[in-house]
Amino acid sequence: MILLRHGQSAWNRENRFTGWTDVPLTAQGRQEAVTAGELLMEGGFKFRRAFTSYLRRAIDTLNFVLEETGREWIPVDKSWRLNEKHYGILQGWNKAETVKKYGEEQVHIWRRSYDVAPPALSADDPRNPRFESKYDGIPTEELPLTESLADTLRRLLPYWEGVILPALVEEGEVIVAAHGNSLRGIVKNIKGMSNDEILDFNIPTGVPYVFEFDDSMHYLRDYFLGDQEELKRKMVATAKV
Amino acid sequence: MILLRHGQSAWNRENRFTGWTDVPLTAQGRQEAVTAGELLMEGGFKFRRAFTSYLRRAIDTLNFVLEETGREWIPVDKSWRLNEKHYGILQGWNKAETVKKYGEEQVHIWRRSYDVAPPALSADDPRNPRFESKYDGIPTEELPLTESLADTLRRLLPYWEGVILPALVEEGEVIVAAHGNSLRGIVKNIKGMSNDEILDFNIPTGVPYVFEFDDSMHYLRDYFLGDQEELKRKMVATAKV
Repeated sequence: MILLRHGQSAWNRENRFTGWTDVPLTAQGRQEAVTAGELLMEGGFKFRRAFTSYLRRAIDTLNFVLEETGREWIPVDKSWRLNEKHYGILQGWNKAETVKKYGEEQVHIWRRSYDVAPPALSADDPRNPRFESKYDGIPTEELPLTESLADTLRRLLPYWEGVILPALVEEGEVIVAAHGNSLRGIVKNIKGMSNDEILDFNIPTGVPYVFEFDDSMHYLRDYFLGDQEELKRKMVATAKV
Repeated sequence: MILLRHGQSAWNRENRFTGWTDVPLTAQGRQEAVTAGELLMEGGFKFRRAFTSYLRRAIDTLNFVLEETGREWIPVDKSWRLNEKHYGILQGWNKAETVKKYGEEQVHIWRRSYDVAPPALSADDPRNPRFESKYDGIPTEELPLTESLADTLRRLLPYWEGVILPALVEEGEVIVAAHGNSLRGIVKNIKGMSNDEILDFNIPTGVPYVFEFDDSMHYLRDYFLGDQEELKRKMVATAKV
């Protein structure tokens, strides 16, 4: 199985909380996706199904990879359960300004605690997902107005266990293009990480992350593709953001 | 329902028989797709499911449209049954050279008859679809080695009746991005055209083709979006190719 975190988006660059906001990739983010595709092509990977979120920065990342690897024909399944963690009222706010307003400690708690969520959107906030037609098919009570990492993992899990894992067993090789926190949920589940361990684990953007399993679907090993020095640099940079 | 024929591909430009050969769009073809997306956005169309073939010129056309209309999140279903007509041994041949070799009349018959197919590929021809991993899941006896238009329609029909039509009933609005001959099959079926009528009917590339139905799924009307003078010019050009 290959996990892939989308490349730089417009709001990454502007240092704003993004969450469920549907911002596009930057030119750099598109280039990261193309490079990921090239690495997967060189590695001879032959994924036969793909999974992604409802957010274009992940979908576009996947599309670049499928194009580079000549695998545009494979079935792609999209789910809101692979979306990024919902950042509540912080969505759209500049991170530096949020620190000024609430203090460094509070912002650190919202960003780096396992089960504390930022303040929730009000029901009539225009950012409420229920106003977006793409979430029409989902019961309003399931749509988050904010999320802790624990909340994100809770809504991800049925999709991981009910859809991705069975497809992996059936097809032998799949790719998941998603977001920092939804991918953390998958990694935590496979590797049995503690809450603290997963908080400290930063998945670099645009680097294919390979998981190998034996025939009984026991986890064997995981590794990142590509230049390992560049990877270290990226992981340090990601941890700082 | 919106039908959309892919824009110019590399082999359209080189005047070669394409069929199931998986050639990319040209820059002009990509621009045609973007323009189609803009027209659909202006028209306020809200398709909730998409269907396309296993060939990248159709998939990429669809991706551009989904990007332009902000609808990348909708489910996309891909099927070999929406592929272009298979052109047998002619695939890859330049059209002018084929005329030189076989004579104008014979080539005209292969291209413009309803039920005469070009000579079939041999089982071990490297162009045989069974050598492509994307067709692994399909029984070899179902994979064509050549096709007449009648053959194309025969393998398209189960997908039209069994997948697209039920989705249209359920969702109310869908888009199909495919090829000249697979789209002809759908049009013939809806409008009850004769074999001669469908042969004379040329769908222009990159122009959204809208079909309206009443609540009992009776066909009401069909029309092309966009500038109607430009459309006429395109239809004449398509008929000549």
